[in-house]
Amino acid sequence: MNQRLWQFAGGSAGQFEVHSVRPVIGETLPHVARLAVINGEAGLQAAPVFCLKGVTSNERYVTRSEKEELVAVQQPIGRPAARLGALIPIKKSQAWWDLPQDERRAIFEERSAHIEIGRRALPNVARRLHHCRDLGSSEPFDFLTWFDFAPEDEPRFDELVVALRATEEWRYVEREVEIRVSRSMPLSPS
Amino acid sequence: MNQRLWQFAGGSAGQFEVHSVRPVIGETLPHVARLAVINGEAGLQAAPVFCLKGVTSNERYVTRSEKEELVAVQQPIGRPAARLGALIPIKKSQAWWDLPQDERRAIFEERSAHIEIGRRALPNVARRLHHCRDLGSSEPFDFLTWFDFAPEDEPRFDELVVALRATEEWRYVEREVEIRVSRSMPLSPS
Repeated sequence: MNQRLWQFAGGSAGQFEVHSVRPVIGETLPHVARLAVINGEAGLQAAPVFCLKGVTSNERYVTRSEKEELVAVQQPIGRPAARLGALIPIKKSQAWWDLPQDERRAIFEERSAHIEIGRRALPNVARRLHHCRDLGSSEPFDFLTWFDFAPEDEPRFDELVVALRATEEWRYVEREVEIRVSRSMPLSPS
Repeated sequence: MNQRLWQFAGGSAGQFEVHSVRPVIGETLPHVARLAVINGEAGLQAAPVFCLKGVTSNERYVTRSEKEELVAVQQPIGRPAARLGALIPIKKSQAWWDLPQDERRAIFEERSAHIEIGRRALPNVARRLHHCRDLGSSEPFDFLTWFDFAPEDEPRFDELVVALRATEEWRYVEREVEIRVSRSMPLSPS
């Protein structure tokens, strides 16, 4: 098993309560009650309604100076206060994948400021990106981005996704779904 | 199934006769008699000794001008005269994958001339690159490069791999195996 593999399974089980499953571009995913986030290939507790897979991987666009700036401020997924989350699966068009590296980078950052827009939400909004396109299985999306944040930072997350969706880069997005979740509170002592 | 998935299975069956399996850097692979090259997940005819998997994917380093120059001259795998082949599985170090995109590009082309060295072997040597690192399974290599060429072009292939192995980029290669094969001739009419 690839240690960088993660599964996001929607159904009746999982650590997260699902508040909404909303199509942003193209076809939606089915509404589910809960979302399980699992590292590796461990079996799921119940047959899920959908199971999206992706692997964390190396950076594809950031430069040394951008990376250093991000690393200095970004926070890991799973801070105790970060009780809200969002999973955003995205598929880009064949036209995007056919572009050479320099043109994808120019659209991504010089013209769409993807890194800069994400940086503005730091450190409040944490983010982990998973790649699906080069899995051996046929996956419905190219990327799964998983965010978490404290309830008082939800407006920052909302601003982040609105700003990204207004970019030139997003013209190459042909499918996008937004799944908003919250983490169950620990059981109180009985 | 991902339509871009390929399997390279070494064992007693397959379209190609194996002439040599040679370690270039690090641990070798076992010697086998034949190599099967299979698109997709179709079952193998016999239990292979090893089976390497990879997916073709988008370009990671080439610019628009480099891509146009390559596309104008490169040939597809499988030309009738291309009876010799080579599979070169490579694993790069964690230090390579931790570099940001701009520094990997600088090492890859500005300092190692990877694209330029490959271009010199065109159109005689055809090449198809497969990525393994972002498969869900744990793969022993990061890349599988598959080459084919006519017997009279074998010296061009030999020059290509010698030149690449002398580059700064290759200091980040921690495992490399070279498997040389030939394609069985069609059966003669009896």
